[in-house]
Amino acid sequence: MTTSITIPSNVTARTQFLQVKNETYAYRRFGGGALRPLLCLQHFTGTLDNWDPAVTDTLAARREVILFDNAGIGRSTGTVPATIEGMSTHVLAFLGGLGVTTCDVLGFSLGGMIAQYIAAERPSLVQKLILVGTAPRGGRDIMHLEKPSLAKFFQDRSLRGYPLLSKLFFADTESSQAAGQAFIARLAQRTQDIEPASGPEVAAAQVAAFRTWEQFSGERFADLNKIRQPTLVVNGVHDEMIPVSNSYALGEHLPNAVLLTYPDSGHGSLFQFHESFTRQAAAFLDSDSPFAPY
Amino acid sequence: MTTSITIPSNVTARTQFLQVKNETYAYRRFGGGALRPLLCLQHFTGTLDNWDPAVTDTLAARREVILFDNAGIGRSTGTVPATIEGMSTHVLAFLGGLGVTTCDVLGFSLGGMIAQYIAAERPSLVQKLILVGTAPRGGRDIMHLEKPSLAKFFQDRSLRGYPLLSKLFFADTESSQAAGQAFIARLAQRTQDIEPASGPEVAAAQVAAFRTWEQFSGERFADLNKIRQPTLVVNGVHDEMIPVSNSYALGEHLPNAVLLTYPDSGHGSLFQFHESFTRQAAAFLDSDSPFAPY
Repeated sequence: MTTSITIPSNVTARTQFLQVKNETYAYRRFGGGALRPLLCLQHFTGTLDNWDPAVTDTLAARREVILFDNAGIGRSTGTVPATIEGMSTHVLAFLGGLGVTTCDVLGFSLGGMIAQYIAAERPSLVQKLILVGTAPRGGRDIMHLEKPSLAKFFQDRSLRGYPLLSKLFFADTESSQAAGQAFIARLAQRTQDIEPASGPEVAAAQVAAFRTWEQFSGERFADLNKIRQPTLVVNGVHDEMIPVSNSYALGEHLPNAVLLTYPDSGHGSLFQFHESFTRQAAAFLDSDSPFAPY
Repeated sequence: MTTSITIPSNVTARTQFLQVKNETYAYRRFGGGALRPLLCLQHFTGTLDNWDPAVTDTLAARREVILFDNAGIGRSTGTVPATIEGMSTHVLAFLGGLGVTTCDVLGFSLGGMIAQYIAAERPSLVQKLILVGTAPRGGRDIMHLEKPSLAKFFQDRSLRGYPLLSKLFFADTESSQAAGQAFIARLAQRTQDIEPASGPEVAAAQVAAFRTWEQFSGERFADLNKIRQPTLVVNGVHDEMIPVSNSYALGEHLPNAVLLTYPDSGHGSLFQFHESFTRQAAAFLDSDSPFAPY
């Protein structure tokens, strides 16, 4: 008789499915401990398989980590909404169906916008926020894939899938691109129960959501004052997809946020510096102070 | 027979004097351990007595902390130089006289400019840098005490000494001003062997140094690339004396720097959030990585 030991990991965690009303949501949950669960909200076109195990598994050591495919992503049913509000409705439906009444949220890029939205709308549900490589409503230069610094990668026919991701998420230095290769190798460890890649209709709806998110009414960034939760904002200083100036705006206008920036890195700074990021994120989440500084 | 136990603290550490060439420098050193000593370089008009024991004493738990009065400050002899270069020459003379051949440097405000200068000039001397509330050469809006947001405090005759410092160093919120009061109470714990306050001639020379530091030649901030040491940059997002945009410039142009910003705080964020700051600073200094992220 052999005993199988399951290490909590996004390499091996089985994908689960939860039906809520008309949709079936794909998700994974692993890890555990006495701390609040951490809901992870994913980036543009990303699926459950795009979460770096070096980040999720380390954070899962002392808390449950929940990864989520929004509607129309991966194996979740439905249509990708063209607004952050629409995507947030699915997150709330999913958490309600799962019975989660309080959690922390790690939102990366697109996921960080949804995280801000639900933190403002449901303050009792979201206790702490980690916002990585993202922008507030009214942010500038959000995911303009047509600009030359990004378009050159999309136009390069030798770059598809993971190699393209490495160019987009990591800075144009030897050290950052090497970190990108290591990131890809970690993602590639998962070989079973994997997700379908997102198609162009996913990208189109999400880009539409970015364009709407750039719009604002009233005083720019004033609505960030509604997000009172302790927040950790993180970005790489060479992020071309959502420039770091958007993280500065979050740090300045969120009333209770610490900002951490990383050198020599782009959009995927949390994956490049996963040891530092998970150490900082865990210290922030573990702190019982009502103030963000940890 | 009674035994006196000396707790390493800037409340009680005796002021020492070191003669090097024509000058006698006042300094304090306390704490200890196997780690590199930490040289602390002080802000505009500040003396040894302006170092918050909540910061220095906590950092001194595992390393020697060295506080230094530059020429013409406190009980150091000589004339206050009107340039950062001139002040740096005194720092190097002092460290040479003390026999320190390698150290880390915490530079606050004016002290952060000197720290950058000596880190670039003497890379083998300075192993790691912590730059708080400071600006690179070519920085913007550095210590313009005549601008309305600062001048209003200098023109208020009810504000002198510590109460003025609290207004200048802390944000205009109830919570930040309360932290300012706590900071002042900590400084006031030292009642013996204290320093003379700086006079207007000190301020004039230091302001002249700020004006020169705002000037640059060639590409703005390009010379930051010379500072290869791991660096931690820290600021409060509401710093009116040296706005946080200068810390953003440091984070973006230093090749190996992590930036940390604090909410609800101004120039004196390290004192307001001393528990977080000393935890972060110690973790940064303790890391044996050649990269700044910790």
